Order: sequence, then C-alpha cells, then structure tokens
Amino acid sequence: MTAAVLSIVTLGVDDLARSFAFYEALGLERCTSSQDEIVWFRTPHSYIGLFGRDELAQDAAIEPGGRTAFGGVTLAINVSSEGEADEWFERALAAGADVLKRLEKTSWGGYSGYFADPDGHAWEIAHNPSWTIGDDGRLVIP
Amino acid sequence: MTAAVLSIVTLGVDDLARSFAFYEALGLERCTSSQDEIVWFRTPHSYIGLFGRDELAQDAAIEPGGRTAFGGVTLAINVSSEGEADEWFERALAAGADVLKRLEKTSWGGYSGYFADPDGHAWEIAHNPSWTIGDDGRLVIP
Repeated sequence: MTAAVLSIVTLGVDDLARSFAFYEALGLERCTSSQDEIVWFRTPHSYIGLFGRDELAQDAAIEPGGRTAFGGVTLAINVSSEGEADEWFERALAAGADVLKRLEKTSWGGYSGYFADPDGHAWEIAHNPSWTIGDDGRLVIP
Repeated sequence: MTAAVLSIVTLGVDDLARSFAFYEALGLERCTSSQDEIVWFRTPHSYIGLFGRDELAQDAAIEPGGRTAFGGVTLAINVSSEGEADEWFERALAAGADVLKRLEKTSWGGYSGYFADPDGHAWEIAHNPSWTIGDDGRLVIP
C-alpha cells in the first residue's frame, strides 16, 4: 500500500488568474503540468491546487451553496524566526492578501498571524521556537 | 530563509474525540506532541491538525459564522492503483465517513471519489495513472 495522504490541498477560487498571480507573488513554484483550468503549486509539504470554486464543489458532488467568512480550515506556513515571519507577512500583503490578525506573540511561546488569500482562504504564518524545520524546508512536529 | 509552506492543514472540528477516532481509524499516525485541545497527525505531506472549530476561527480572528456544505477546500489522498482506492474508500466508510461521490472512472483517465469526514471536510481518494508516488509515500506532480 502506497498512499500519498494529503498529497494535495485544492482551493476553490473565483478568479484563477488572480489567484495564480497571488501565489506566484508569494514565491511558490508552479508545476509545469498545470493546465488552463487547474494550477498546481509545489510546496515542501502538500501540493496546492487552484480550481474554480463551483467546479471544485461539483467535482466533489457538494452543493457550492453560500459562503461564510470561515470555511472551517486553516493552512500554515511555519518559519524559523520572527523576522522571517514578518517578511512573509509583508510579502503576502504586497501580493494582495487581507490581514486577518497581525503577527503577535502567542500564549504558546511563539509568534503568529493570519492573512486571507483573494478568496478568503485563511493562512497562518507562525514561528514556533520548539519546532524545527529541516534543510528540505519541511516542518518536523514531534 | 527556511519556510515550511503548507506545513499544517488544521481542520476545525465539533467533537475532538470523534474526529481523533476517525483519523486514527483511517490509519494516520498521531504525533506524540498532541495535546488535549489540539491533535496533530503525521502524513507524508502536510501535518493535519484537529482543533475546535470555534477556537480555530477565533485564533484566525474570523467570525465562525454559519456553515455551508462546501467550505471551499478539498483534501486529497493519492493512491497507486484502483484497488487501493477501493480499499481506502471502504476504510473511510467503516470509520464513519459519509459518501459524497462513489469512486468512478474520470474524464482525465483516472479513478476518483470523495468522502466527508465527521465535520464535512471533503477528502478525495484518487488514482492518477500518470503521476508517481515515491517510496517515501509522497506524490510527485511534474
């Protein structure tokens, strides 16, 4: 059994060109196998897929329905210092992200903030001093 | 700069014990650093976090608001054969998942279906014959 669990996180988007530009401005690497209707980005962890929101709901056989501010999921970017968190947050804002919560010291001894991508998908930028990030750019949670 | 992009996908849940049991029944490995309020699961790609839905919204400074069937995000498990997809789907149903779409041949030459976890988070089980999965259990998208 070879199962690539959580291989892809697909984000439903309203404007593929806008979202593509946003994630490219964040510095993510687009996969060459991306197509007109679906874009893949490579990360050290899961791949990110961008796909039309209604088409994604249809593919999953779910009613696209109305929207709420909170979709029930958050995505994280862990960095190795507070300064790097600041840099990432600024880069996200420059790319057009909305601030959900400015970076601040947290109760768990770290440093964290949240931004929303053009479709409202919530991303946390976090530095957790008790976790390590390998040379492969992958977080290690004990 | 060492940034672990998409290090964690945190799922807001209504009943942490129920969701913990579900993902354990799927065969995922719980991280020892899990706590009473938040559970981490290891996957070959991103980590999965389970956290109370309202607390997660609060952490991200978003109004938890009402819910719709579709949260705008889907998560994928890629497998290396149709038979393995069948096995995963059956395991998910046995663990208490709801069927969103039964496994079927797809227009892109693969085999795909969707289930919903206890909180309605949508997971796709897919076999894409043109993609490879490494010995480390990680999907490779060209």
